[in-house]
Amino acid sequence: MLKLGTTMARSFRIALVQMSVTADKPANLQRASKLVKEAAAGGASVVSLPECFNSPYGTGYFPEYAEQIPGPSTDVLKKAAAENNIFLVGGSIPEEDNGKLYNTCVVFNTTGEMIAKHRKMHLFDIDVPGKITFKESETLCPGDNFTAFDTPFCKIGIGICYDIRFAEMAQLYSKQGCKLLLYPGAFNMTTGPAHWELLTRARALDNQLYVATVSPARDEKAKYVAWGHSTAVSPWGEVIATCEHEETIVYVDIDLDLVDQIRGQIPLTVQRRHDRYEVKDKTQS
Amino acid sequence: MLKLGTTMARSFRIALVQMSVTADKPANLQRASKLVKEAAAGGASVVSLPECFNSPYGTGYFPEYAEQIPGPSTDVLKKAAAENNIFLVGGSIPEEDNGKLYNTCVVFNTTGEMIAKHRKMHLFDIDVPGKITFKESETLCPGDNFTAFDTPFCKIGIGICYDIRFAEMAQLYSKQGCKLLLYPGAFNMTTGPAHWELLTRARALDNQLYVATVSPARDEKAKYVAWGHSTAVSPWGEVIATCEHEETIVYVDIDLDLVDQIRGQIPLTVQRRHDRYEVKDKTQS
Repeated sequence: MLKLGTTMARSFRIALVQMSVTADKPANLQRASKLVKEAAAGGASVVSLPECFNSPYGTGYFPEYAEQIPGPSTDVLKKAAAENNIFLVGGSIPEEDNGKLYNTCVVFNTTGEMIAKHRKMHLFDIDVPGKITFKESETLCPGDNFTAFDTPFCKIGIGICYDIRFAEMAQLYSKQGCKLLLYPGAFNMTTGPAHWELLTRARALDNQLYVATVSPARDEKAKYVAWGHSTAVSPWGEVIATCEHEETIVYVDIDLDLVDQIRGQIPLTVQRRHDRYEVKDKTQS
Repeated sequence: MLKLGTTMARSFRIALVQMSVTADKPANLQRASKLVKEAAAGGASVVSLPECFNSPYGTGYFPEYAEQIPGPSTDVLKKAAAENNIFLVGGSIPEEDNGKLYNTCVVFNTTGEMIAKHRKMHLFDIDVPGKITFKESETLCPGDNFTAFDTPFCKIGIGICYDIRFAEMAQLYSKQGCKLLLYPGAFNMTTGPAHWELLTRARALDNQLYVATVSPARDEKAKYVAWGHSTAVSPWGEVIATCEHEETIVYVDIDLDLVDQIRGQIPLTVQRRHDRYEVKDKTQS
């Protein structure tokens, strides 16, 4: 496995950091740093934190924990990326910008340069009576753009949690050439068991690429109880790494030759009827 | 459950006829008639046969078994639909038209009128070394159109087998207002266990509608061994009815209120970022 220093690396290791998040922001940041270091020591070249890793998840918390970007939390990420010589996908944090709040993921490269910033495009507003009601749009604004970044390994597309339900986003990332999609996310005890793995597998199989989800560890006492189960799925639609709900790091080796091999065997990309339908990216027009 | 005679029926029963197909065409047609009658007696208002129900599946068979439409096989279907007062989705048959062959599904209404004809849009050309190599395009031509039809219950979209791998088709059917998609199909012993259920669940969850697949029963001695496992999935992405690989009829009650309820709880349809992306139907332009 090549870690860096080549544009030809055909395999690389990623780490999904399913960290425990508390109400203590400085403690969360310290914990994130420690776990990122551990993940890099475990051989990961790309490390992802979970959604909302510096704050408890909940509309009531977002205004209090929100920061500008750059700010204290992203400074910690920047340092962690450079010190450990990794690509760091900073899960997400509540971001404040011009009086508006967003659920935002920043990505740093191996020298600590911020190379991408994704604001959750689809806000989590759902109402399953007696099970889960949540309205992110009470405090947050949606982002308006797709976010993919290049690495020496492959292009990687980013979505945050509820974004994964919208197949079009993954379809467009695949069209852009992404071979790995990362979704930091915090599904709950209703939608988690029902949909988390299914959505991850669906995005992978339909687009013939790797997909990984990164959840916070479960805190039974939190107002919003996360499902955990950070998971990686191969381009064949198979779960290749997963976990339960405790704090842990899931390591996954990404094999880009396998992507090409599966796309050769079942050549959906060339068989798509581009003459009859098309998924259009309207952010480009 | 209302069987017919109202445009307000909110639930109806469908039957997935997983029939045994042999090399004897007249016997296949007779068997199809008998099973359709049985399915109607079981309370089904919409009955579907499997892909290639009048012929063994294989490029070598298609030219020999192909018929024009209308022709002897569709005459049998027409009669069966009218006699049993059901909507009959005729799985598929090899169709000959102007010297070209297609893999075609015809649909008859309760009075025996042919109301839809779908030619498989995506031909099954795959090559998984040591497992399965198949090239439908050796003898078949693809269809060029989407096919949905109205019933007193809901609009129903049709795909044939490999069509299910192309998410765009289901996305467009959903946009057109379909609440049930039917895929007669014959996956094999490699792609069946890996992808059949996953694709069915993915189409249902992503589009929040019912999806059902209808396979022939397995014939271990056939050149192409079908996976069986005809399956129905709810708009929540849950398998609600399935079977093994023997000849059987799977009954499923479709609850249109559940479609609306789930779309209300997780309102993907209105949350889609139509301003940022769009699945376009290019057959309309």
